Formats: sequence, structure tokens, C-alpha cells
Amino acid sequence: MISNHVITLGGVIMDIKQESLKLHEMAKGKIEVVARVSADTQRDLSLAYTPGVAAPCLEIERDPNKSYTYTRRGNLVLVVTDGSAVLGLGDIGPVAGMPVMEGKCVLFKAFADVDAFPLCISSKSVDEIVNTIKLISGSFGGVNLEDISAPRCFEIERRLKQECDIPIFHDDQHGTAVVAAAALVNALRIVAKSIEDIKITINGAGAAGTSVAKMLLEMGAKDITMCDIGGIIHKNRNDLDDSRRELAALTNKTEVKGTLADAMIDSDVFIGLSAPGVVTADMVKSMNNDSIVLAMSNPTPEIFPDEAKAGGARIIGTGRSDFPNQINNVLAFPGIFRGALDSRASDINEPMKLAAVYAIAGLVSESELCEDYIVPSAFDKRVGPAVGEAVAKAARESGVAR
Amino acid sequence: MISNHVITLGGVIMDIKQESLKLHEMAKGKIEVVARVSADTQRDLSLAYTPGVAAPCLEIERDPNKSYTYTRRGNLVLVVTDGSAVLGLGDIGPVAGMPVMEGKCVLFKAFADVDAFPLCISSKSVDEIVNTIKLISGSFGGVNLEDISAPRCFEIERRLKQECDIPIFHDDQHGTAVVAAAALVNALRIVAKSIEDIKITINGAGAAGTSVAKMLLEMGAKDITMCDIGGIIHKNRNDLDDSRRELAALTNKTEVKGTLADAMIDSDVFIGLSAPGVVTADMVKSMNNDSIVLAMSNPTPEIFPDEAKAGGARIIGTGRSDFPNQINNVLAFPGIFRGALDSRASDINEPMKLAAVYAIAGLVSESELCEDYIVPSAFDKRVGPAVGEAVAKAARESGVAR
Repeated sequence: MISNHVITLGGVIMDIKQESLKLHEMAKGKIEVVARVSADTQRDLSLAYTPGVAAPCLEIERDPNKSYTYTRRGNLVLVVTDGSAVLGLGDIGPVAGMPVMEGKCVLFKAFADVDAFPLCISSKSVDEIVNTIKLISGSFGGVNLEDISAPRCFEIERRLKQECDIPIFHDDQHGTAVVAAAALVNALRIVAKSIEDIKITINGAGAAGTSVAKMLLEMGAKDITMCDIGGIIHKNRNDLDDSRRELAALTNKTEVKGTLADAMIDSDVFIGLSAPGVVTADMVKSMNNDSIVLAMSNPTPEIFPDEAKAGGARIIGTGRSDFPNQINNVLAFPGIFRGALDSRASDINEPMKLAAVYAIAGLVSESELCEDYIVPSAFDKRVGPAVGEAVAKAARESGVAR
Repeated sequence: MISNHVITLGGVIMDIKQESLKLHEMAKGKIEVVARVSADTQRDLSLAYTPGVAAPCLEIERDPNKSYTYTRRGNLVLVVTDGSAVLGLGDIGPVAGMPVMEGKCVLFKAFADVDAFPLCISSKSVDEIVNTIKLISGSFGGVNLEDISAPRCFEIERRLKQECDIPIFHDDQHGTAVVAAAALVNALRIVAKSIEDIKITINGAGAAGTSVAKMLLEMGAKDITMCDIGGIIHKNRNDLDDSRRELAALTNKTEVKGTLADAMIDSDVFIGLSAPGVVTADMVKSMNNDSIVLAMSNPTPEIFPDEAKAGGARIIGTGRSDFPNQINNVLAFPGIFRGALDSRASDINEPMKLAAVYAIAGLVSESELCEDYIVPSAFDKRVGPAVGEAVAKAARESGVAR
């Protein structure tokens, strides 16, 4: 059954591939830098450039916060990658990652009117990446790290958060965690289970899986089992890196050992951020009643919806737009940065991310909420502004607004 | 007489200052990043973003040159500063330099349809600046270094030219040299003197003065005397840095010593890239017949046109728009990068800069050419395209086009 889907999908991708190449070639790039002021007369130039431009320069020299008033900084986010973990393509290199970065910038603009500018860094060194971003951070109001492989992404983000006074956000971690958590909040409303009481299995302990686990713990989850390619993550495994050792300490309290299939037995929730087709209908069958399956590997999920349904899952979400319940970061990152910029936040902290979770979930009303509608559509125009407002409010309440 | 001008100028600047602050605040930044593709439907997203975007990514992975086809790189220039020599304001710091960088980006777009994006680097270290720009250079089709103080700007440019495969251009050096040289070419047509035969005095041995001297030498000048704050630059001065020692070797063949006033005696041409009011009418009087005075200190020139005229100068140019013959970099850099991008040049080399000189000069026809019209207006719409075409042709002929 999986192979059928893959073949079908392959057919679709072949078509999309040619069209996408044509679009990219004809567009000559998906973003453009334009002027917001005119340069038609000598007067224009004397105000926007010399000699008038000296005035805002001197104001900013006196008070660097004025850079948010007199330059584009207050609406500008850096989207930056090293090209080491681009989509599902892996390490294709910095320059080859740029079409994705430009695409991300298009989404920022379309869904939250945030100016975003794409950069790639030609280095895999954590030190060099951190230093490069830090040195140019005065040009931006925030930084969206993108498609940087784990575990380097964790250290890069941690150090940049320490060293920069603008928000640093690794979307592959936190954007994914926010939308997955929002989907789970609404799914749990349907099955009338509480996050404190459920057994959750997460497959995939990379950037996204790790961040999802931490966010759910913060939201009150007590029983999370994480799996990676070596099976269930537990303290006694001797193949764990720092990040997974931390996960082993935070999850799997009963120190279960075994495979993903073992972990899924009696689970209420499966969340996949791993690889195509690693979950079978039989594994879903072993889950608890009213099981929730969020199979987010993209474009090919851990299990396709019809198979999960055959295994008895009540609520199923994927990353794909051609099935119900598309769990897509685009619901999160544009509004999160909208809120961070509007509040001139110095950080995107946990309260702000949680505010985004509940803002996204809250856009699905009680009357609309059902098995096939647990998150708003990616094109729901209310999402960006609603998330932005909630995040800005959380920034002010948590003391990071300026 | 100078003080009158300064007071008048001061009055104008006070007015422009308030208006400029208002413009900057209302515009909320002078540049904007917009999308060139739509993101209105699922189909749009599947082409511009996942899954379709994987196709251009993989094409670029196979052949990095395809980044010019599938991303904005082919029309995109980085405008970057460390804030160490911003306008005449000096070292006001990276963030405070950003209004100038944004203004420069506006000019790139307005005069040559080049997308330019502004960045500031929070470091004064040559190594850090070089490394930062090098590591992000894969995102751009060219780099315009801006307002970086001498002598660091020389080393930064030299090393970046070695280490990057895209054009690196320090506008304060080469843009200034190109427009000054274009003005001189046409001024010499009027006075019917040949560049090989004339005596040239250049005051100012910073980034601009140094580059002007080198360009004029390349164009055939044989007799250049350079001055700095210590007077005439000669081999026996023991206060010279590396850059000035090189100038001492290239210029002042007869090893003259003395002051700027001494140097100007019998000169055919004075070019000032130095400081307000350092030249008097008497100094101009000491020059040769049909003297040419290009007093480019801005906004207050080395000598105002009426005083230079009183001293007998036949042709006078300044950096200001309120006098005839405004010698402004905007005549050069937009078209130079237009040509470099159109030819996908790996460098902006000497033949390309010379092509720009003659393209700018050539736009003033024989019938128009006169003492008060030696360079086209900054708003002459022919300039950007004409310079672009000439520069692209020179790139192809000199083997740096791709």
C-alpha cells in the first residue's frame, strides 16, 4: 500500500518539478528588494541620501534603538541556512538551499507582511555560523534559522540567543513544535483526553522531534516515549549524543526499552517527525482507543491516512495539503515573528511560543472542530494576525518587549 | 567667504535634517523585500515552496551556476559597511550607518534596476569583516563595500577579490575614481590638453584619493602629486603607512616636497577628496592656464566655485547638486553593477571601470560640452543603461564574464 502512494506521489512530483523549474526561471528569483521612497528629484535624493540622511544616522548613533524607527529593521527578519538539512534533501550545500530560503521569505511576506531576506552561510562550523549571524544581526529585527542539521542547530541557536539582542528562532524546531502542539490541543478536545493523562510516542529525535517533546512536557505531558533509528531512547543506551541524553533524562520515566512498535503499544498519541512509511496499520492497532496519529514526515508521511484509519486511528494529521489536517509551519512562523517585531521583543521565549499554540488552536471554533478539522487552513487569513497579537501580548507580559 | 557659504549651508541642512527624519520615520525604512511570486493557493505554494522547490534546489546542487537562474542572485548586490567612515560623519558605528546603506540600495534600484540589500557588520577587524562577507557571498551576485575607513578598506577589498568568485567593489574608491576620471576626460576635451602632458595635484590620500590617482595613472597620467594632511607625499616622509608608501612610489616622480600650496603651483588640474575649504583663490591663481578644479569634498568643497572662478579656474566641479558639474558616484555604481550582473562577471576589473569612465564621459556630446556641463545629470536616465552595456562588454572582452 505504501508503495502505491509513493508511486502516485512520484508521478505528482515529476509534474510539479517541471512546473516549479519553469516558475523559478521565469520569476528570476522569488523575492525582490524595492524602494519605499522615491528617487526622482534632487530633493528626493537630498532627503533619502546625502546630505539629509546624516540626520537619522546621528540619531541612531545617539540611541541605537532608533534603528527600529529610521531603518527597515523593525519589520525585517533574516532567514538563514547553511544548507545542511534542506527539506528532506539533506546536506545539499548553502547555495542550493537558497530556493527554499526565498520561498520561506515569500511566506513571511504573504502571511504576516514581514519582510524576510534569505542568506546562506558557506560553513558547517558552529563557531563560524554563530559569529557570522551575530556580526550582521544589527541589520535585522529577528533571525529565523532554517534547515540546519541537528545537533549543530541546538548549539547555534543556544549561543545566538545568548549573544544577540534580537529574537533567534529555529523554525524547524519551534515552528514545528508549535503547530504540532496546536493540532494536539484540538485533537485532545475531540477525544476528551487531558494532556497530563495520555501516553505519547514521538518518532524522530532530530531538531523537530526534540522540540516537540520539550514543548509537550512544558504543556503538562507526563508520559512521553521518544524513538530514533535505534529504537526507544532510554538512559542506558550508549549511542546517544548530548541532545538525546538530555531527552533520555526528560522522557521515558519508566525506562522502557525496545522498538518503535513496542513504544506505540497503548499509546494515545503518535507523533512522527522521522521517515516515510515507518509505521504500519498493525502498529496503530496496538494503540489505545481514540488514537491520534500525527504523521508529519513530508512529503511521504510515516503512515498514510487511509492505512492509519484502517488501523483504527480516530484523528490523523500529516504535513500534506492533499489530506485533512495539514500540520504546516506556515501557521506558526509568520505570526510569531509578526508578534515579536510588533513588540520589539528581544527574544522569542516559551510564553510566546505557547501563546502561538493556543492562538492557532483557538481559531478552530467548537462548532467547526471535528476529526477532519483540527487546525486552520494554511490560507486562513486570520492566522497570521491572530498569532501575531497573541505573541506580542505574551512578549509584553513576559518582559521581553521593548 | 567660505564662512558665508557654511552658514547658508548650515541653514539648508537644518531644514533638510528635520524633513529627512520625518521621511525616514514615515517610510518605516527605505527598502522593502517583496515577493515576485504569488502565495494565494495550494498550487502556488507547492511550486514556490514544498514540494516543488526541491527541483531548483537539486539543479543548483548539481551546478551552482544555476543559482543565477533559479534564485534572485543574478540581480542582487550586497551593500555592506562596518560604519567606520560613514559620509563625512566618520566612525558612527555599524547600525548608525544603515540609513546610508538603505539609501544606496534605493539608488541602485532607481538608476539601474539592481536589487541591493544593506547589511552592517559589527566588527572593525579586517579578518572578521572579510570572513563574514566571504561566508555569505553565495547569496549575492556582487558586493558593494561602503563607508569602510582607509587603510582597512584596501586590504578588505584585496582579500575579498582573491577569495570570492563574485565582483567586489569598494564604491568610495572606485565609484569616485570613475566619475572623477569621466569629469576630467571631458574637461580636458574643452581645454584641449592631453592627460599625458598635464600636471595633476590630488589632495586627500584616503580611499577615494588613492583610487583616483591609480585610475589616472592607468589612463596615461605621468605627473601626479598627491598631498595629505602632512603636505606633499614623497618617499622620504617617515609618517607614511603602506598605502601612502605605495603612492609615494607611483607619484611625485621628481620628489617634490612642501605643502598643498606648493604642489598646486603650475598644476593643470586640482582634484580634492579631502576637507572643506582647504584651497584658496590664491592657490588656484598659482595654477597653470585653463586650470581645472574638481573640489569633491561634500557637502562643503575644498573651494567654492565662485572663489575658484575668482582664482582663474576655467572648469570647476563639486559633489554638490546646487552647482554645475556635480561629480556624483550615482553616475557610476548602478551601471557598473548592472553590467557586472548582466555579464555574470566574476570581478569588476580595470577594463570594466575604464569602460564606465568613457561611457559616462561619452554621454556628453560635442555640441553640449562646455565649462558648465562636463558630466551628465545624476537624473539622466541614459546613464545607468549606457554604463551597464559598456561594462558588460568590457567584462566579456576581458574574460571575466560567465
